[in-house]
Amino acid sequence: MAGPQGKNEQGRVTLKAIATLSGVHVSTVSRALNIGTRSMVVPSVAERVIKVADRLGYRPDNTAISLRTGESKLIGIILPDIANAVFAPILSGASQRFSALGYSVIVADVGNDAAQQLDFVSRLAARRVDGLILATVSRKDSLVSFCVDRQIPSVLVNRAEIGSRLSAVTSDDALGMQIAVDHLVSLGHKRIGHLGGPMNLSTGFLRRQGFVKAMASRGLNKTDLIIANASAYSRAAGATAARVLLDAHPKLTAIAAANDLLALGAYDVMQERNLFCPADISIVGHNDMMLMDMVNPALTTIRISHKEMGRQSADLLVEIIGNSKKPVCKIVLPPELIVRNSTGIPRSLAPAS
Amino acid sequence: MAGPQGKNEQGRVTLKAIATLSGVHVSTVSRALNIGTRSMVVPSVAERVIKVADRLGYRPDNTAISLRTGESKLIGIILPDIANAVFAPILSGASQRFSALGYSVIVADVGNDAAQQLDFVSRLAARRVDGLILATVSRKDSLVSFCVDRQIPSVLVNRAEIGSRLSAVTSDDALGMQIAVDHLVSLGHKRIGHLGGPMNLSTGFLRRQGFVKAMASRGLNKTDLIIANASAYSRAAGATAARVLLDAHPKLTAIAAANDLLALGAYDVMQERNLFCPADISIVGHNDMMLMDMVNPALTTIRISHKEMGRQSADLLVEIIGNSKKPVCKIVLPPELIVRNSTGIPRSLAPAS
Repeated sequence: MAGPQGKNEQGRVTLKAIATLSGVHVSTVSRALNIGTRSMVVPSVAERVIKVADRLGYRPDNTAISLRTGESKLIGIILPDIANAVFAPILSGASQRFSALGYSVIVADVGNDAAQQLDFVSRLAARRVDGLILATVSRKDSLVSFCVDRQIPSVLVNRAEIGSRLSAVTSDDALGMQIAVDHLVSLGHKRIGHLGGPMNLSTGFLRRQGFVKAMASRGLNKTDLIIANASAYSRAAGATAARVLLDAHPKLTAIAAANDLLALGAYDVMQERNLFCPADISIVGHNDMMLMDMVNPALTTIRISHKEMGRQSADLLVEIIGNSKKPVCKIVLPPELIVRNSTGIPRSLAPAS
Repeated sequence: MAGPQGKNEQGRVTLKAIATLSGVHVSTVSRALNIGTRSMVVPSVAERVIKVADRLGYRPDNTAISLRTGESKLIGIILPDIANAVFAPILSGASQRFSALGYSVIVADVGNDAAQQLDFVSRLAARRVDGLILATVSRKDSLVSFCVDRQIPSVLVNRAEIGSRLSAVTSDDALGMQIAVDHLVSLGHKRIGHLGGPMNLSTGFLRRQGFVKAMASRGLNKTDLIIANASAYSRAAGATAARVLLDAHPKLTAIAAANDLLALGAYDVMQERNLFCPADISIVGHNDMMLMDMVNPALTTIRISHKEMGRQSADLLVEIIGNSKKPVCKIVLPPELIVRNSTGIPRSLAPAS
């Protein structure tokens, strides 16, 4: 029943109130206010109904619509750390695209703890999101099992799984390291170290694999490979790993880092030890996150297309929502070398000054 | 009706299926699965029901719950640019707090266009969000009118309105500039310029006001004030404004910028003109966004508590949702000076080298 001012007990404008004021049946109001059925109503009547609805401040009740259609038009995006600059452009690209496609986005910052991630995703599933973008997954991930078991349409972004249970949009991580090593070798470096990422993440694993392969293809794997892995993608973890690397291999002349934050951690350690970049050690990062042109020295790095990754993951997810039989699909975007000031020829080849 | 495996036509596990397998009435199942009513059921029975529900993969239907309670447990956070590093920690602080309080967060990146912002917020309102955090508002904002008219619980964060129609959590922007000017004056600077932000935003407006007041309190407003306003908070707009400032006032020795990105734009212009910071011109930023310790030179800036701002806005909004009569309230957090390498004594006072 419509109460005062045509509102029900929840304070919402009722279709009945609009019908009364428009002088039409409530079913006509319902048809006129729904874009999908508006053509069934005489245009002048539809216009009158819409005007009355506008005047009363009517808002369509998406919750009720969801119950009828079974679609929520909600997408969940699951991030390990919203404050990490790497995820901002992925999120930006994905949410702009989803918005253009008529979806709203729920963003959840779930950290790296598997139990907490599952708890979050269960809650999103309870909200009946139409699909999920997962930027969190490790190489063997219980979240992926959860989504596969429950047949929740899902797409992985940036980080992939070992298996091929879900579609994914990633950068070519192995190629990125190949490009980084090629750049250092072309400058004359031979004793090149790798500052690796976490090995439980595909990005860390594949970039390390790319490094090993690139060194082998250049014949630089005759002696032991110089590698230290960081426990997390953070500046502090990068510094810890860089100390290990430099302590064990004081003669290295270049470092290919698995991530820009790790490279910045190496900057910190070089400053501690009065070493200069690139005069003493050249450093290449990975990602080209914001402001890498402004750090000192400006960081040579491998640029990945974060925003495009976000967009393509959104497109892919919407396709999967529309067609649950779509086969698993892997989109791999090519990275690009950005040369700045953190790489140069090794001191042994530099002209005497 | 329960279909195969106790699922209905939408593929959802039904309460009836759980009731049959647990050997209890469906109303008992409903009570056992709802935390609010579980105590009405014998513990051993509740446990049996929960086990069966778990085994079948039952998910509570929040959409249906929303219709019953009128609460969606959804919060909308409206940002002007999710890729701007300033918003990441606000978002992070707010979403962590909301999550702890049982709310999910819909993040919308709505740009700076007023019409698009209204369209987005209308869509969120149609989803019946319980409340909104607005990080977008200008000093006179149509979004605020929209939320006030429709009585949508809302809190402004970072940027406030001129009026006091909605509660807000901001940094003390005028004080920030006061601290910046005091720091420069204490180093011996007198010809201090202000690189202002957009005047339609409270942050730009109040920081400029703070600058003017600080200069006056130091007796440095005898001649014309040296001010150029950027059209946006971006490095490019900062560079454009810095060129105007330096062309008109080639003798200035220090710049207090309204934002770190504007300060970085000034760095770019100084490099173009072969000027050195701080030897030729000292620069103070505002915000202390990520990596400001890594730029060259490391930026002296005014740190604002972004994450805390996000947390407090979440707490405030939840209070308002619980009590629609709560009076409008303004929380203003104090900023802090972080001295790094971009400020020094003016050349005229430096010892001859």
